[in-house]
Amino acid sequence: MPEIQSVQNRQEQLQLLNTALDSGHLIPVKDLLEELRGADIAHLLESTPPRVRNLIWQLLDKEREGDVLQHLNEEIRQSFIEQMHPQELADALTDLDTDDVVDILGDLSKNVSNQVLRLLDEQNRAQIEHALTYPEDTAGGLMNIDTIMIRPRVSVEVVLRYLRIRGSMPHNTDHLYVVDSRDVLVGSVPISSVLTCDPETPITKIVDQETFTIPADMPETEVAQLFERHDLVSAPVIDEEGRLIGRITIDDVVDVIREEADHSLMSMAGLDELEDTFGPVFQTAKKRAIWLGINLLTVILAALVIGLFEGTIGKVTMLAVLLPIVPSMGGIAGTQTLTLVIRGMSLGHIGEGNQGYLLKKELAVSVINGILWALVISSLVYAYSLWKNSDFNHLHLAITIGGAMLFNLVTGVVSGASLPMLLKKLNIDPAIAGGVVLTTITDVAGFFALLGLATYFFG
Amino acid sequence: MPEIQSVQNRQEQLQLLNTALDSGHLIPVKDLLEELRGADIAHLLESTPPRVRNLIWQLLDKEREGDVLQHLNEEIRQSFIEQMHPQELADALTDLDTDDVVDILGDLSKNVSNQVLRLLDEQNRAQIEHALTYPEDTAGGLMNIDTIMIRPRVSVEVVLRYLRIRGSMPHNTDHLYVVDSRDVLVGSVPISSVLTCDPETPITKIVDQETFTIPADMPETEVAQLFERHDLVSAPVIDEEGRLIGRITIDDVVDVIREEADHSLMSMAGLDELEDTFGPVFQTAKKRAIWLGINLLTVILAALVIGLFEGTIGKVTMLAVLLPIVPSMGGIAGTQTLTLVIRGMSLGHIGEGNQGYLLKKELAVSVINGILWALVISSLVYAYSLWKNSDFNHLHLAITIGGAMLFNLVTGVVSGASLPMLLKKLNIDPAIAGGVVLTTITDVAGFFALLGLATYFFG
Repeated sequence: MPEIQSVQNRQEQLQLLNTALDSGHLIPVKDLLEELRGADIAHLLESTPPRVRNLIWQLLDKEREGDVLQHLNEEIRQSFIEQMHPQELADALTDLDTDDVVDILGDLSKNVSNQVLRLLDEQNRAQIEHALTYPEDTAGGLMNIDTIMIRPRVSVEVVLRYLRIRGSMPHNTDHLYVVDSRDVLVGSVPISSVLTCDPETPITKIVDQETFTIPADMPETEVAQLFERHDLVSAPVIDEEGRLIGRITIDDVVDVIREEADHSLMSMAGLDELEDTFGPVFQTAKKRAIWLGINLLTVILAALVIGLFEGTIGKVTMLAVLLPIVPSMGGIAGTQTLTLVIRGMSLGHIGEGNQGYLLKKELAVSVINGILWALVISSLVYAYSLWKNSDFNHLHLAITIGGAMLFNLVTGVVSGASLPMLLKKLNIDPAIAGGVVLTTITDVAGFFALLGLATYFFG
Repeated sequence: MPEIQSVQNRQEQLQLLNTALDSGHLIPVKDLLEELRGADIAHLLESTPPRVRNLIWQLLDKEREGDVLQHLNEEIRQSFIEQMHPQELADALTDLDTDDVVDILGDLSKNVSNQVLRLLDEQNRAQIEHALTYPEDTAGGLMNIDTIMIRPRVSVEVVLRYLRIRGSMPHNTDHLYVVDSRDVLVGSVPISSVLTCDPETPITKIVDQETFTIPADMPETEVAQLFERHDLVSAPVIDEEGRLIGRITIDDVVDVIREEADHSLMSMAGLDELEDTFGPVFQTAKKRAIWLGINLLTVILAALVIGLFEGTIGKVTMLAVLLPIVPSMGGIAGTQTLTLVIRGMSLGHIGEGNQGYLLKKELAVSVINGILWALVISSLVYAYSLWKNSDFNHLHLAITIGGAMLFNLVTGVVSGASLPMLLKKLNIDPAIAGGVVLTTITDVAGFFALLGLATYFFG
């Protein structure tokens, strides 16, 4: 009986490896690497600075490169693949599932990808070339071709005999697919039924009444929603004629869910969801600079709005003190709504049918909070300017900031609710552009409202 | 042969249902609801305003309430459960898996939960009471107790006979667990092996060499990382003595992954990850108000910093125009780093071993970007003040804003990199508090740097 390997063991192995790396003795590192699974090595590579990363990669057995590559984050995988000779890469890819090979080849230039393809064996190549014809972010790009097909007019006994001859099953096989003579999918049989029912049972008796079939052109985000909502482990992919062409499994869907969630989080901060946490300094600085540059442009725009009212500020310098408050509150309120709507859209909760209700609801929420915080800030500013014993009308200043606050909270929330849908219609990713556009609106509108009202009263 | 149900069909059904709801004819709505699965009805409920939501719930067959409840978002589920009589709830829970029942009962008050428990049948109750002893966010709280256990000294033939007598298998069963006479887990057998190998084979021959065993007290986020990294469909849960006590399946892990990702995204905007997109106005307004109030406090703090330098602004009013630029850039740069670190921590990429490297890398990135954007903004401000023909030293103003920019970008990035780890040590959730603390720092530091330098030159 083999000893069962616990999770603690693995974490200890990782720590041992780190210690060995720190000590600079490479023999124990090599030994430890041999004990780790490909997925663990990939995780280790993702958690280390580039120098150590390259060292580990060089110490790795050539035979295990494919296994590690398939688990690596795209950005880091790319950096290793670029150093590999086409023959070495082709060797590494030989033992992988088609969907993983397609995934890796998809990142390469057409030229290199073709070179590698030519080096794969013929059957593999044909399958992969076919799979490469589907866009990466659709069901076709996500599927694997290792499906077990059976005919309807056989018994469970026959299926069992067939499986024993086959000798193994593709990973995550929880259904066998029943196809007719033209490979058209007619249903699926849970393998739990194959195991639990009488061997004499005809397959037609245990065909699943409701199979979720996935058209090859379904976007991967919809595939993920389907798996998530219906707790699927695998689902068949069909072409336009209903023929079974492949199978999507939950492990690939989990990656889609993770990437999609990461995408919203990272994009809203202007980061690439694949950003390598431990990537090289200059590469990182360059990527970040773009986002900072865009932000500088928007904040200069806001500053120019203040510039229009420099005269008023010269008269009432306390306005300068109040400047950050209104844009900040509008930005916060707007970002809350924006985030809620972006999440709702990615979960498939928000569509044509209910966005009107949502806008009205958010508007009502913003009016309530706008009135509340307008009253609070007005009272505070009134008290502060009384205390400072300033020589202007305290009530007018209180009205100025209260009015601007109400106006800007509503502006922020309405923009936050409508921007994502608007941007989506324009084919712009709301997660990337939404936040910048929103804060530009709330900054500009906030300064205009505050300083405009102030100019009316004091200008 | 049953007709296979495609995804398009389901979406059409949902649209039909919406049309029927809009028309106000409830008979077709009831008919359509009967055709939908529980998960689809749950999704529909999550996508509709409260009025329609309650209507659909009332039209739903009592027998299907449990199926729908288990798929609903906690917040909405709570609102329905509160209206249900304990007997009705107990009936609804009867057909669900223990883990789902535990999940639902965990949301109730101790009192109501006990009332419902008393109404469940005895065997169910004992199991559920035991499961309720594990904290909700650990492996024990996530597991299901429906495992198939087999003994090592039998053949595949015996296992097949046992399964046929059993007649069905728990959902997502991809392994059978081999236990000794004291229920201690000694290994697992993939059901693909049971299907493909010769019936004469002894179980000891096909026991999986590497089973991932999960201790009951492992945090659910670690469980999720394990499933994600090793593409698991199910894994056994053991107690301190190594006894098999349950099984975690990928469908529940997908929910953990989704919730965790949602948590980072939503928390950073000050939202509850369970926030009901279509929730009632006053409830929503109240929740949002808290976050706005916290933000108001921090921005008032920043305003008070400006207040310290009102005299300087009185002399050089152009400083008011420049006010938003430095804090904004520091906030953006800091948020990028903060988001990267929070994501890295939740993926398990960042730990004691590499956070020093990360901090140095981010510091280097911020110095590069700080110098770049300090030069850009200094030149722009120099040109602008020349053009405005102001009566102060243009070079001093350019140095003031450039210096403040460099200082604040570095401050923002260093804070963004170190805050999450610091907050975690203090047991504060970085996703919730990180952003507020960070922007408070960059606002205060930014205004201090800009106006402090200005006071040095012009004060």
